[in-house]
Amino acid sequence: MEKYKGLSAAQFFYRNREIAGFSNPVRALYQSVRELVENSLDATETHGILPEIYLKIDVDKDKEDRIILEIEDNGIGIPGREIPNVFGRVFYGSKYTLRQTRGVFGLGVKMAVLYAQITTGMPIYIKSSTLNSSYIYEYEIQIDIEKNIPIIKFLKITKKKNRKQHGTKARLITMGNLKGAHRRIEEYIKRTALIAPYANIVFKTPKVEYVFKRVVQKLPTPPKVGKYHPKGVDIELLKMMIRKTKRKVKLVDFLSNNFDGVGKRTALNFCKWCGIDPNLEVKNLSVSMLELLSSKMREYPKWRRPRPITLSPVGEKLLKEGARRILNPEFVTAVTRPPASYSGNPFIVEVALAWGGDIQPQNTPILYRFANRIPLLYDEGADVARKIIDSIDWNIYKVKFPARIVIITHLCSTKVPFKGVGKEAIADVPEVEKELNIAIREAARRLRRHLSKVEKAMELKRRRVIIEKYIGEVSRALAYICKMEDKIFLEKLSAMLRSDIEKRVLVRNVEA
Amino acid sequence: MEKYKGLSAAQFFYRNREIAGFSNPVRALYQSVRELVENSLDATETHGILPEIYLKIDVDKDKEDRIILEIEDNGIGIPGREIPNVFGRVFYGSKYTLRQTRGVFGLGVKMAVLYAQITTGMPIYIKSSTLNSSYIYEYEIQIDIEKNIPIIKFLKITKKKNRKQHGTKARLITMGNLKGAHRRIEEYIKRTALIAPYANIVFKTPKVEYVFKRVVQKLPTPPKVGKYHPKGVDIELLKMMIRKTKRKVKLVDFLSNNFDGVGKRTALNFCKWCGIDPNLEVKNLSVSMLELLSSKMREYPKWRRPRPITLSPVGEKLLKEGARRILNPEFVTAVTRPPASYSGNPFIVEVALAWGGDIQPQNTPILYRFANRIPLLYDEGADVARKIIDSIDWNIYKVKFPARIVIITHLCSTKVPFKGVGKEAIADVPEVEKELNIAIREAARRLRRHLSKVEKAMELKRRRVIIEKYIGEVSRALAYICKMEDKIFLEKLSAMLRSDIEKRVLVRNVEA
Repeated sequence: MEKYKGLSAAQFFYRNREIAGFSNPVRALYQSVRELVENSLDATETHGILPEIYLKIDVDKDKEDRIILEIEDNGIGIPGREIPNVFGRVFYGSKYTLRQTRGVFGLGVKMAVLYAQITTGMPIYIKSSTLNSSYIYEYEIQIDIEKNIPIIKFLKITKKKNRKQHGTKARLITMGNLKGAHRRIEEYIKRTALIAPYANIVFKTPKVEYVFKRVVQKLPTPPKVGKYHPKGVDIELLKMMIRKTKRKVKLVDFLSNNFDGVGKRTALNFCKWCGIDPNLEVKNLSVSMLELLSSKMREYPKWRRPRPITLSPVGEKLLKEGARRILNPEFVTAVTRPPASYSGNPFIVEVALAWGGDIQPQNTPILYRFANRIPLLYDEGADVARKIIDSIDWNIYKVKFPARIVIITHLCSTKVPFKGVGKEAIADVPEVEKELNIAIREAARRLRRHLSKVEKAMELKRRRVIIEKYIGEVSRALAYICKMEDKIFLEKLSAMLRSDIEKRVLVRNVEA
Repeated sequence: MEKYKGLSAAQFFYRNREIAGFSNPVRALYQSVRELVENSLDATETHGILPEIYLKIDVDKDKEDRIILEIEDNGIGIPGREIPNVFGRVFYGSKYTLRQTRGVFGLGVKMAVLYAQITTGMPIYIKSSTLNSSYIYEYEIQIDIEKNIPIIKFLKITKKKNRKQHGTKARLITMGNLKGAHRRIEEYIKRTALIAPYANIVFKTPKVEYVFKRVVQKLPTPPKVGKYHPKGVDIELLKMMIRKTKRKVKLVDFLSNNFDGVGKRTALNFCKWCGIDPNLEVKNLSVSMLELLSSKMREYPKWRRPRPITLSPVGEKLLKEGARRILNPEFVTAVTRPPASYSGNPFIVEVALAWGGDIQPQNTPILYRFANRIPLLYDEGADVARKIIDSIDWNIYKVKFPARIVIITHLCSTKVPFKGVGKEAIADVPEVEKELNIAIREAARRLRRHLSKVEKAMELKRRRVIIEKYIGEVSRALAYICKMEDKIFLEKLSAMLRSDIEKRVLVRNVEA
């Protein structure tokens, strides 16, 4: 006889932790750091606060694989009553809205807590205070795995001395292999600094201490919470929305009230196009009508493009700033594409290309991938950006390998099509692939222009050297013929050479 | 102010369906078929029943992307009261035991139901009867996504006419792109037939009808439900087990009652090794003691290897049988490795290698991957087997590309280290990688022996032809010298040649 049973979400991920990136002590430590850093950034930049992040990783003196992780931020804080669920309940959080955030699954930090719990048995320590609260909450939390609910081990509420103080501090004692993970974590923090040049980040381990000071003082415009795009609907979404709708609401009003970029006129045009009566009451629609409606909504070619208010691209200026700060290249350029969408999700692709300088020469372009500002370090081979870069014939762009070239890609979306909950590789959704391809090739064309200019400048220099070599001889010969002083010819010819060269040299090392 | 909320497991996967392989109508259809077929096979072979599987895929006449999937099996059936949860509740099932099964996550078939529900709005139809029941249950089920509970749309219970009849029939009306998915599904069914040559499978679409008749009548020994291996524990597992233990149970008895391959003596030796008193009552252990105990259990070098009773490898004979049936090669060999383990999970690696015959020549070995008898068709580039094959210098094994070579890998384990819930690629766990590497190289060595023999036979044949050419001439010369009839020499020399060649020719086309 078979035994049937149900698992809680916590039990499921407890059993299958490798799916969320917690496959071994190296990867688990890396993943834990990531989740904490990403939460801190979401708590600051998404809400218009310039991030101040302090991250410390320590190793237990007696036990090399016992790691003490500590992180502190100046974010908006977490309301006291929400803290237990945010850290102690899988699939719980504030990231389930239509807005670009680093976190999306409501899973990561719980996995870090779970991993600590099953390896060291220790709870997570949280201290947090929200923007306008008068209190500070301190908690120690574990997860009741069988029930997927938080266990509060410790709670202390104190009155704030300084009402302006806000933010969150977390401490986790977990199993990890710091030796194995150190390089990756370092790289992760460096790349985070690259993509978030408005952040102050202090990163300390027993081996190193980095202080990344912000190089720009202005945050990109934070993303706003948006509405669903009509192209992205399905029957269940329609049902859920209709459930929340008042009685007697007509289809035309339902559409224009609930969807991104849909006004009354657009709604009427759509109804006309698909032959559905706009005056039907949505509460009365049958399942087959809902099926028709949702399939027509997916097919209708005339919806407006999703508006990008939910997104917060880095912008060409900041991208270049970041690349210069970390890579110190000879040339850098950046492309931010206009907003596009796939199955109703708006997205923006950004690409920067850096060349020469301190970049190490390689046989293929080095790739720095980002998604919603998260550096992606693992599974590059499975990522759509690598696929595109490898398919390009770089000779077209005057790039001969080994070359000093770094390509930075950034995809921001209300729904990044990650291949797994570990958030490491982006799937090859056709729309995303197309935009990335355009952006990378545009950046490569600009590189070619730069390289052409450099080539031309080199050629001119070479010619100048040759001409200069003969200028004395020619001057003397002319002087002899004209019976004049050779100094006059020497000066005139040199001046001609200078002005001619100057006209042609328009190369600047870094694109304006 | 941030809005916090919790998601049910169904809501989570509804939002992130691409993580489970439901990213578009092609992939979703392929994945739905897989999940249904795998459930049917688990319901038969795992319980010692020779599988009879009937799979039919139809397309709605009026709507090309509306697909009707139907599957029927002669499995053990699902108890009536369990049917709603098995199809309508994410993270519910009978596969959460320590035993090799195709299903593991309790997720796949629910995703198929969910996808149908959000695309066509239709429930799944189930008809099932268990082995010794007198009743047949018919259900129509959908999922309440917000609550992650089944919605029963229809229920009918009838008395069985034939008590011996048992099995399950399922019908799903879903959105899918059959044109796009046809080739993959076909390939999936063919490879399933390869790895399960004891199954009768009928597969019907508007385009094709395949009937795979079983070629062997005997099932491999079905896997048994096992105990945890002491190397695979963590604190939470210990806590859960202790919770189920009676009061006053001592550590030594707790260990010898609950773990795989641990008797009283082994338990005592372990306690001595790590300096923990074997007479401690487990109910009284503190968290720090549990941490110590679990870390010592993971480290102890003298546990017995996990026993493979929980596993059911295909076996070298059936593997070769399957390869011959599908590939019709010139040469085939198979290697089943002895059981090994990673983090307490037993596993067995099997490899078959097929050469020549009907195999198409390629520039790299063609790879057929299987895990717990599931054919894996997507994400080959991310799989550990591909990594190994690409790292081998095939010249060593006398293979020159393009070559007609197929490598079949099969990993069976109570816990296959899949990289994602879509069950497509196996992670490079060091222990698994090592075993796979050994098995592939062993098969390759056998291929080299075969190729050497073929080479040698060719060489001998060449020499024989040359010698035969001169045998007449030599016979005549000898006859002239000895003044005897040349016929005698001709016969003797021919006989010598024959016997010499026969001694050397030991080649068989197919390894015994």
